[in-house]
Amino acid sequence: MAAGVEWHGFFSSILVAFLFLFEYGNVTIFSGYCYLCAVLAVRDGEGSDCLPRSSGGVVSETTACNRVYVKFFRMKNTFFSRLAPKESKFYPLLEQLSETLVKAAETLVSSLPKSTPEEREETYRKIKDLEHEGDKLSQKILDELSSTFITPFDREDIHDLASSLDDVIDGINSCAERISLYNPRPISNSGRTIGDLIRQGANCLNKAVHELERFRDKPKTLRECCVELHDIENQADIVYALFIKQLFEEEKDAIEIIKIKDIMETLEETTDAVDHVGKLLANLIVKYA
Amino acid sequence: MAAGVEWHGFFSSILVAFLFLFEYGNVTIFSGYCYLCAVLAVRDGEGSDCLPRSSGGVVSETTACNRVYVKFFRMKNTFFSRLAPKESKFYPLLEQLSETLVKAAETLVSSLPKSTPEEREETYRKIKDLEHEGDKLSQKILDELSSTFITPFDREDIHDLASSLDDVIDGINSCAERISLYNPRPISNSGRTIGDLIRQGANCLNKAVHELERFRDKPKTLRECCVELHDIENQADIVYALFIKQLFEEEKDAIEIIKIKDIMETLEETTDAVDHVGKLLANLIVKYA
Amino acid sequence: MAAGVEWHGFFSSILVAFLFLFEYGNVTIFSGYCYLCAVLAVRDGEGSDCLPRSSGGVVSETTACNRVYVKFFRMKNTFFSRLAPKESKFYPLLEQLSETLVKAAETLVSSLPKSTPEEREETYRKIKDLEHEGDKLSQKILDELSSTFITPFDREDIHDLASSLDDVIDGINSCAERISLYNPRPISNSGRTIGDLIRQGANCLNKAVHELERFRDKPKTLRECCVELHDIENQADIVYALFIKQLFEEEKDAIEIIKIKDIMETLEETTDAVDHVGKLLANLIVKYA
Repeated sequence: MAAGVEWHGFFSSILVAFLFLFEYGNVTIFSGYCYLCAVLAVRDGEGSDCLPRSSGGVVSETTACNRVYVKFFRMKNTFFSRLAPKESKFYPLLEQLSETLVKAAETLVSSLPKSTPEEREETYRKIKDLEHEGDKLSQKILDELSSTFITPFDREDIHDLASSLDDVIDGINSCAERISLYNPRPISNSGRTIGDLIRQGANCLNKAVHELERFRDKPKTLRECCVELHDIENQADIVYALFIKQLFEEEKDAIEIIKIKDIMETLEETTDAVDHVGKLLANLIVKYA
Repeated sequence: MAAGVEWHGFFSSILVAFLFLFEYGNVTIFSGYCYLCAVLAVRDGEGSDCLPRSSGGVVSETTACNRVYVKFFRMKNTFFSRLAPKESKFYPLLEQLSETLVKAAETLVSSLPKSTPEEREETYRKIKDLEHEGDKLSQKILDELSSTFITPFDREDIHDLASSLDDVIDGINSCAERISLYNPRPISNSGRTIGDLIRQGANCLNKAVHELERFRDKPKTLRECCVELHDIENQADIVYALFIKQLFEEEKDAIEIIKIKDIMETLEETTDAVDHVGKLLANLIVKYA
Repeated sequence: MAAGVEWHGFFSSILVAFLFLFEYGNVTIFSGYCYLCAVLAVRDGEGSDCLPRSSGGVVSETTACNRVYVKFFRMKNTFFSRLAPKESKFYPLLEQLSETLVKAAETLVSSLPKSTPEEREETYRKIKDLEHEGDKLSQKILDELSSTFITPFDREDIHDLASSLDDVIDGINSCAERISLYNPRPISNSGRTIGDLIRQGANCLNKAVHELERFRDKPKTLRECCVELHDIENQADIVYALFIKQLFEEEKDAIEIIKIKDIMETLEETTDAVDHVGKLLANLIVKYA
């Protein structure tokens, strides 16, 4: 007995510590325990089915315990393959998402000078398709998060980054939707300027996302992107404020004011969404670089 | 000494692992340590008051440590009773919340054909009461989360589910409030159609919440609910877009446009809130089923 | 060997438990392991460079492991100084934030009777400066959270508190911005009443934030603040509803309705933001007091 206990202590320390090193999510800690059980059981000649027995007395349908237990078995086959450091699936997915964003922003900018209802509706349809693509990609990232062992950043950070990139695409979609539904007079120069700023922001975000794999060692490029993103939002603020002030001074058609104010607000909010991603990226630098 | 150390290793491994199995929240880990201390102290004939002494040197008003320490003593008496798997309080609370939602949706739908200020105000009062009920229920769920040891899902999942169900009720409340305050012309057929979709969504959500206890084994019904919820939102989008397009083409009274546009937007946003709960439920399936 | 293993078990149990006691963040757990490694290595005469070797086989650019590894070395020098319980930086930062909020609320209230475009623009400029100050303070709190070992509350709680205080300042900024850009007729008595409620809420929040260091022992004052904050929101709701009802009954200028409705909504939403902080504070009481 004494010798077994000694070995137990040895295995538990080494293995729990080893697994903390890889991941520190709940599942890993538990998996570490399971792995430890298995090792000890094999050592004691009990076979590999030790887990159900050792935790049998406490497993119950309604406890969290059972969930992890089930999860363990779902993960079992890929346990060792997952432990091996490997190319992350998150970078390519995030890059696809930011490229979808660039496409949406370019479609919006190229449509702003157009003023027939048909052209506006066509733009909206194109951007809506891109928005669906963005939804699928960010859902894919969430699903990956739920089933992946090792993530390159904390789970919440990847989650927030994907959602906030998706929010920018949603903002662009809302702009195109409003222009198509309200069918206002031709979009003003201020509107086009904010459209250009959104495109500039989208390109900057795309560049930033492609930096994610590198920024831990060389945070300079990412840091510059964050500054640029914040600058874009400030410029959009100024353009928007001047335009709205002028609109209420000069425009006397209330219905046109309703349309234009709503569209300009949506454009301006989209640059806020751009800046929000910039803030998340800046936090990543503080946290990891 | 050597024998003591051996046993210490044995107890620490077994107990920490055992408690990881049940819950992996911070409190549990600490409680595991406390329990371990107690066991060792009893073994060493030191009595059960070992905790204050063993952690005495590091307890300080301003550290997190103290908080856990206090929490431990609050939990102490129910420690073992809490470990025993038991009926969760979360399912009945969530079910009450989704039933409140159904009532609110039905009140809204039955009021949409009514057009006198008095009837509209009465509807708003009824729905406001239901909204307060929803607030209380979701607050109760949050309080349970703060004080419960074992939760059937991750804490954030329950938190998000309760808040997002509450958001749907808030959306219905905002619709009724706007109709009562703005007192617009009779609600259009499009508005009533979206109202029907909200009621359909509320019933579907209620069904989904009643599936939560079962879906780990049989996720089919919950999966169908998620598809239906997403479908509802898509239908509402189409009805809303057609209506707004027509509104700006035909209505020439700017004040009426302000009223109707705001009400229709709020109705449409409520179906977005319905779809948002659907996405959370879909994530639960990925995570736990 | 046997003796070494014994000691390993002893050190691992003591140290892991000791560190759990202080903090239960991921970094600490890992740091606990590193510290343990170091102790064991020193004991075995291997020098203090044991970490790279012991984890060398698994460190990889793309794994989370590396991040923690890097983080550990960044933290190394301050490891022991950080363990010592010390005065938190969070309380003074949160207090500065709530004092900025009070200043912003007072600037808004004192400006509401003013009605020339110049005065309104000047108020907006002042409040915008305070809003920038609030942004900097809440960013500073986030940066502290990323780099601090021991926090007086759970990280998310501090994060949510700082963001939601900042949201109130943002709301006040939006009110001032709209008044300056739209330049409506003089603000009504209802608008000034809601302004007073916002100032009252800001003072109450400032008082509540100054209670954070004390409320674990004496939660009474904080509890009273939460009740007051909720009451403020209810009062604002009633004032707002009456005003909007009257506005649509009496005002016939659509453009003025657009302006006034938007400003009053923003004022009312700011009291919602005040109430939201109140709810977070109430949750803190449930969790920690």
